[in-house]
Amino acid sequence: MNVLFASTIEPADRWLPLLERALPQDKFHLEPRADIEVALVGAPPKGTFAQLPKLKLVQSLWMGVENLLADPELPAEVPLARMVDAGMVAAMSETVIAHVLDWHRHLYYYRSLQAEPRWKRVRQFLASDRTVGILGLGELGGDAARKLLALGFKVAGFSRSPKQIDQIRSFTNLDEMLSITDALVCLLPLTPKTRNILNAKTFAAMKPKGCVINLARGAHLVEKDLLAALDSGHLRHAYLDVFDTEPLPAGHPFWRHPGVTVTPHAAGLTEPRTAVAKIVENVERVRRGETPLNLVDFVAGY
Amino acid sequence: MNVLFASTIEPADRWLPLLERALPQDKFHLEPRADIEVALVGAPPKGTFAQLPKLKLVQSLWMGVENLLADPELPAEVPLARMVDAGMVAAMSETVIAHVLDWHRHLYYYRSLQAEPRWKRVRQFLASDRTVGILGLGELGGDAARKLLALGFKVAGFSRSPKQIDQIRSFTNLDEMLSITDALVCLLPLTPKTRNILNAKTFAAMKPKGCVINLARGAHLVEKDLLAALDSGHLRHAYLDVFDTEPLPAGHPFWRHPGVTVTPHAAGLTEPRTAVAKIVENVERVRRGETPLNLVDFVAGY
Repeated sequence: MNVLFASTIEPADRWLPLLERALPQDKFHLEPRADIEVALVGAPPKGTFAQLPKLKLVQSLWMGVENLLADPELPAEVPLARMVDAGMVAAMSETVIAHVLDWHRHLYYYRSLQAEPRWKRVRQFLASDRTVGILGLGELGGDAARKLLALGFKVAGFSRSPKQIDQIRSFTNLDEMLSITDALVCLLPLTPKTRNILNAKTFAAMKPKGCVINLARGAHLVEKDLLAALDSGHLRHAYLDVFDTEPLPAGHPFWRHPGVTVTPHAAGLTEPRTAVAKIVENVERVRRGETPLNLVDFVAGY
Repeated sequence: MNVLFASTIEPADRWLPLLERALPQDKFHLEPRADIEVALVGAPPKGTFAQLPKLKLVQSLWMGVENLLADPELPAEVPLARMVDAGMVAAMSETVIAHVLDWHRHLYYYRSLQAEPRWKRVRQFLASDRTVGILGLGELGGDAARKLLALGFKVAGFSRSPKQIDQIRSFTNLDEMLSITDALVCLLPLTPKTRNILNAKTFAAMKPKGCVINLARGAHLVEKDLLAALDSGHLRHAYLDVFDTEPLPAGHPFWRHPGVTVTPHAAGLTEPRTAVAKIVENVERVRRGETPLNLVDFVAGY
């Protein structure tokens, strides 16, 4: 089978040797051809899809597919699969835990004291004093939830449909979850329903002295509402990995705000070593004429 | 029974209500008296022990007892118990994980980029690419080791005697452990054998680009050796919670060094809500004439 690797962002040299070893019977190409049956894409070059008349599967290299869905060139009749990569899921949970603990252990505050410098200890809390509220209890949110629970935090989650995860409180009513939430973690897909979900009303409904961690998409956040919630003292800190405009422009207030930690959309990257297994599975499914895994629901938008 | 609470640091008002509720048959005192049988101490006022002729147990409020052992006033014939507090053990593990993840996910580096500001993503590693080496595999090290393992890290530990902890490599030879260690975590008691264990030779034996996390005692670390290892680039970052002189003096180079995160001896504090149970257990043991738990071995020094 002929497989296209098309990305303006992912470096092909980190993927192709692993793909060729894992699928020796297939041919991998970096340029479109008429005989391509599977396209592995992450921000593909403009015009790519128009040159793939025999395409049977678009396999995203990334979990978020909102840009592909908004691309008028995406062929509507070809199945689209998102990447659900164990390495990326683990990386995202690591980042969630790093930020939750940074807030919980007052490390963001101790860094501000180090800058003065000043030696001052503040009151310690137990993990069981804190509730982490997770927006999105799918592959990412579920993994982070279980790992936070193992560290002793109380964990709640908000999702479209109720989820059953042992010891985790599942909410379909956002305000109910926010009323018990200290640390709010956004891991949602970006859809018309989730756009701007991190807004003034959301922050006001949270318990005071908490934090907001957005690792999903910049468009989930109303930026000026976050700055107001930080400046009022209601929120203690925000950890932001994603932004409306990326790279975040040099003059943006987030860069300089003492209450904001900025990271360069690096909270969880697809890891070729673990993601290749998911590509192998879906290529084999196409070869056998079976339905690929992790197909995108075009109505739900993820 | 009459119990003394004697500390120049721990606030009595956070302890006494809990102690009085948990041990209603006993009397708690803030000043020494001749009829005191149990002394709860954390840096007690000078002269305290000389006024306690009927003392049956010295119960430390803290896990580290090197200052008590060095106190010439400590009665040699009275058993001394360290505090092994579940809340403090959990807090310490949270801090270990926070710092390991801060290094592993490059967050210390992204903070330096934010200060410029600059948007630049660096290569992601899997937790299983990293080995965390823990100095001390007792109550603290064992708990941190298990939690790091659950996040996917490879974990090794160094201790006086070999330990059996599932999936954790136990070493009694320090150099052997260092040769596979990326992130080195010090959780040792301070004894003549462990003083200065974090020195130039130790750092040189570690894998490059790692980090050092000292949450134990300042005297474990040779400060100038750490600065040299950071400045040479062999170590990427150091997380220091404890210092030779505390509070860390205003002019100390650690405050201003970009490779050092300073926290004010707050990595894991005894938590009265959980520690009181340990005090109850040992007071009851004294009442019944039994041997208290967690007695200090005066030869080993902890």
